[in-house]
Amino acid sequence: MQMAPNPRRVRIFLAEKGIEVEHIDLNLREGENLNEDFLKINPRGVIPTLVLDDGNCLDETVAICRYLEETHPEPNLLGTDALSKAQIEACQRHVEFDGFQPLLDAFRNTVPAFAKRGVPGLPAEYDAIPELAERGQRRYTLFIKNLNALLANQKYIVDENFSIADITALCAIDFAKLLKIELPEDYEHARRWYEDVSSRPSAAV
Amino acid sequence: MQMAPNPRRVRIFLAEKGIEVEHIDLNLREGENLNEDFLKINPRGVIPTLVLDDGNCLDETVAICRYLEETHPEPNLLGTDALSKAQIEACQRHVEFDGFQPLLDAFRNTVPAFAKRGVPGLPAEYDAIPELAERGQRRYTLFIKNLNALLANQKYIVDENFSIADITALCAIDFAKLLKIELPEDYEHARRWYEDVSSRPSAAV
Repeated sequence: MQMAPNPRRVRIFLAEKGIEVEHIDLNLREGENLNEDFLKINPRGVIPTLVLDDGNCLDETVAICRYLEETHPEPNLLGTDALSKAQIEACQRHVEFDGFQPLLDAFRNTVPAFAKRGVPGLPAEYDAIPELAERGQRRYTLFIKNLNALLANQKYIVDENFSIADITALCAIDFAKLLKIELPEDYEHARRWYEDVSSRPSAAV
Repeated sequence: MQMAPNPRRVRIFLAEKGIEVEHIDLNLREGENLNEDFLKINPRGVIPTLVLDDGNCLDETVAICRYLEETHPEPNLLGTDALSKAQIEACQRHVEFDGFQPLLDAFRNTVPAFAKRGVPGLPAEYDAIPELAERGQRRYTLFIKNLNALLANQKYIVDENFSIADITALCAIDFAKLLKIELPEDYEHARRWYEDVSSRPSAAV
């Protein structure tokens, strides 16, 4: 399994939809995303990036997922009507801003390979901020506690339907293992959910 | 004009759509968003929050805008087909993550009223991080430089159509004035765009 969590969000989304695309892997620790060849494709230097057959290029995980959902509506992962689309988008952002992004802050601002790259992509000139790593870790720890409480009453993050919000949370929880943060043993609801979503074939990517 | 930039994004979106809703203002500096009454409505303690007639409650600016777009499709602000929806979502996130959020980091981690509330909403127990404020200001300064370059070749942030990406950028640029950061005089393309979007009736909210 490749480690970078944002590309994995898209890989899981693709697998759920049964869409096959050509993948090209870049080594972020070695800065391959900042090489001239890649910057011609995406001047921001961030991954994942989706290149369409007509040459159009999309970045931002959730925007790529939007394109895939619009072109391959089934199985639905972003909602089916105004309210469910908005609820899934809200919950996806809760997971992203309360858990996923704080975890990435913790990682980026801790790992020596990113000591001068505290922000993804270009420009690669932001020093790591140890206090932000600590804040990120505290926020992520609270996120999984709240996730456990939420999942006491429902099967998935948005009620009874698997959605992009579950994908974002799963990728965060697996990525947290790099920082040696596991779901606590007594988070029974979060662990039940984790077993469920991890056992889907899409999670193997 | 109320200052908090996320509620203003929704107010502009509503004004563009010609939708009227009841507004209730909260004083964030005094922590009214953390009062018991508001936490009953939104336990995360963040604004804006939209309460629907059926009692459903939505937070997260972009999710609220999604609901409004789905229920009031015209004028279109989030795209009309798979590609334009994805491009607008990508660009909206570029503005949000490269400019708007760094600016909010700069504000939150500088202003004394938020010295113990470095993260919006609950829990209100994150100390401000001065280095994050400085990083945020540097990132925002780069964002407006890049915005000026982008707008040399197109009318709006996504080609020739006003979209949610323009709303997010406008709210950032006006909010930056609180930190005494103006668009530089020689950013002629960004200033032409700013004059344009600021002159729309929706910008007066």
